Amino acid sequence: MKTARLFALVLMGAVAFTTTVARATADPLPSWNETAAKKAIVAFVERVTKEGSSDFVPIPERIATFDNDGTLWAEQPMYFQFLFAIDRVKALAPQHPEWKQKEPFASLLKGDMKAMLAGGEHAFLQIVAGTHSGMTSEEFDRIVKEWLAAAKHPKTGRPYTEMVYQPMLELLAYLRANGFKTFIVSGGGVEFMRAFADKVYGIPPEQVVGSTGKLKFELGDGQPVLMKLPEVQFIDDKGGKPVGIQMNIGRRPIAAFGNSDGDLQMLQWTAAGSGARFCLYVHHTDAEREWAYDRNSSIGRLDKGLDEAKVKGWTVVSMKDDWKRIFPFEK
Amino acid sequence: MKTARLFALVLMGAVAFTTTVARATADPLPSWNETAAKKAIVAFVERVTKEGSSDFVPIPERIATFDNDGTLWAEQPMYFQFLFAIDRVKALAPQHPEWKQKEPFASLLKGDMKAMLAGGEHAFLQIVAGTHSGMTSEEFDRIVKEWLAAAKHPKTGRPYTEMVYQPMLELLAYLRANGFKTFIVSGGGVEFMRAFADKVYGIPPEQVVGSTGKLKFELGDGQPVLMKLPEVQFIDDKGGKPVGIQMNIGRRPIAAFGNSDGDLQMLQWTAAGSGARFCLYVHHTDAEREWAYDRNSSIGRLDKGLDEAKVKGWTVVSMKDDWKRIFPFEK
Repeated sequence: MKTARLFALVLMGAVAFTTTVARATADPLPSWNETAAKKAIVAFVERVTKEGSSDFVPIPERIATFDNDGTLWAEQPMYFQFLFAIDRVKALAPQHPEWKQKEPFASLLKGDMKAMLAGGEHAFLQIVAGTHSGMTSEEFDRIVKEWLAAAKHPKTGRPYTEMVYQPMLELLAYLRANGFKTFIVSGGGVEFMRAFADKVYGIPPEQVVGSTGKLKFELGDGQPVLMKLPEVQFIDDKGGKPVGIQMNIGRRPIAAFGNSDGDLQMLQWTAAGSGARFCLYVHHTDAEREWAYDRNSSIGRLDKGLDEAKVKGWTVVSMKDDWKRIFPFEK
Repeated sequence: MKTARLFALVLMGAVAFTTTVARATADPLPSWNETAAKKAIVAFVERVTKEGSSDFVPIPERIATFDNDGTLWAEQPMYFQFLFAIDRVKALAPQHPEWKQKEPFASLLKGDMKAMLAGGEHAFLQIVAGTHSGMTSEEFDRIVKEWLAAAKHPKTGRPYTEMVYQPMLELLAYLRANGFKTFIVSGGGVEFMRAFADKVYGIPPEQVVGSTGKLKFELGDGQPVLMKLPEVQFIDDKGGKPVGIQMNIGRRPIAAFGNSDGDLQMLQWTAAGSGARFCLYVHHTDAEREWAYDRNSSIGRLDKGLDEAKVKGWTVVSMKDDWKRIFPFEK
C-alpha cells in the first residue's frame, strides 16, 4: 500500500511537471510568423509581467484596447455594421413606403449605392438612425444576432463572425493569459458589437466601448424597457477614442491596437503614458488572402498613422508578411 | 522518515480542514444584525450561487450595481461632491474676481448658502461647471485626491472617505467573494468617484458608472491631454441609471442597491429581468448614529421608492434596526 501511494505521488508529480513544460513551450501565437512584430509583442508582455523588473505593471493596470473594424475583423468592401444597416433597410422597406421617395433610402432600395454614398456622412447617419432606433435594446440585440446567424460576406460567402483575424484571436488570448484585461474601443455601435464580442473574441459586454445612440428608459405598462432613439449620443472615433476610454475605463491603456487613422489618437494617448507602452497598427497588405489598402482608402484609411508609427517606433504588422494565417477558416 | 511524512500529511490535512471550517462559519456580514434584511441577502446569494439549482446564475452574469451617495457613503448635510465644489469655488476665487459680482458664486463666497441654493439646478450646474472644468482629467484626479486627504466632514470631523457604511463594505466584499462583479452606478461625477472608489470600496475605475462632463482630446505640444469642458455629457440619475448601465455595462444587473427615488428606475430595471433578482433600499432611519430622512428630504428623497419597495417586496434596510455598526470608526 505504501509503495503504491508513493508511486502514485511520483506519477502525479511527473504529470504535473510534463504539463508545465508543455505549457511553457507551446507557442501562444502560432499564426504569427517569427518576424519582428511577434518578437516585439512577446518582449513587451515579458517585460511588463516580470515581477521585480522596473517595467513591471500590476495586473489591474494591464489594460489593452483594440479597435474592431479592420483590427479584429475585416472591414471590406464596407464596414460590416453598414452592410447590416443596408440589409435592414431592405427588410424594413415594406413598413416604410415613404422611403421610396426619400434619400438616401430611395437610392439604396434601387441598388444605386453610388448615389446613396454621394449623400456623405448625413446619408450614412440617416441610414443608421433609420435602422438602429425605434426598438428596445433587447430587440435590437436579437435582430443583430439573427442577422449574424444568416448573413454571408459578399466575397467569401462566410458568416461575418468568421471574418475575424486568427492572429488577433491568439493575441487576445495571450494577453489575457498574462493578466491583461482586453477591451474593444471602436467606432462601431456598442450594442451591435456586444451581440458577438463575447462569443467571438471572449470580450464581455462591459469591456466593449463604442459609439452610442441615445437611449430612453420607459415604463410602458409596468414593464421597463430601454428604447433606442435616433439621436447620436457619442462617436467613439479619432479624438473620441481616448474620451471613450476615459469615460468607460478610466485608466490609460498600456497597449493599444488599431489599423487606421481613426485609431491614431488612441495610440497617441496610450503611448504618452509613463512606463512601458505598446502600440501596434495592423497594415492591410495582403490583396490575395485579405485586402490591400492604406493611404487612399475611404474605408479604414491609414495615412497619418503610418507616418507616426514610423517616427514613434510603433509596431506595424504587415498582414502579408507577419501572419501565417489570416482567417480561422483557412487551411 | 515515512512516519514523519505521514504525520506531516495528517497535520496538513487537519490545518486545511480547520481553515475550511473557520471560513465556512465566519460571518461575512458581522455589522448586520440578525434581522430579515441580512437573511434576505444571504438567501439570495446562496440561491444564485448554488450549482444545479434552478436559480443558479453563471459568474459573468452576477452583476451588482450600487448607488453611491446615501448608499455606500453618507450624503448629509449635502452631497459630498457639492461640498468639494464649494471648497473649490473658495480656493479658486482669487483667480476669478468676476465671481464677486456673479451669481451663484457671489452668494456662495459671502457664505449665503440659502441665496446660492435659491438658484436651483441652474446654479448647481454653474458651480459644478466652474469647478469641474478647465483642467485635464489627470489634474482633476489630483485635485480631488488632495481635497479628500485634507477635508473634514462638518459634523463628524472625519475625512469623507471614512463616512462610508461598514455594513455596505462587508456586503460588497461578500458579493465579490461569491463571484459578483460590483459596480457603482451613481449620479455623482464619474471622475470624482474614481478618485477613491478603488481604495475605499475595492471598485476599480472601469466599474464606476456616473454622470459625465464633456471631454476633449487635445495634442498641445505633442503631449496628449483630455481637457474637461463645462458642458454636461450625461446625467446618471433616475431614468439615466438604466441607460448608464446599458451603455457602460451592457448587462442587466441581478442585484441593485440604492437609497432614494433617484435609484428607483435602476431597481425597476433590475427587478424586471428574468430569474432571481434582488433589490434593496437603504432607509436612513437613525438620527443618532447617522441621519433620519426620507419622503420630505431635498437630499436623497425616498418617497415613491418606499411605496414601490413595499408593493414589490424589495428589501428595505432600516439603518437603525438592521445595522449593528454604521461607520467603520465607531467602536
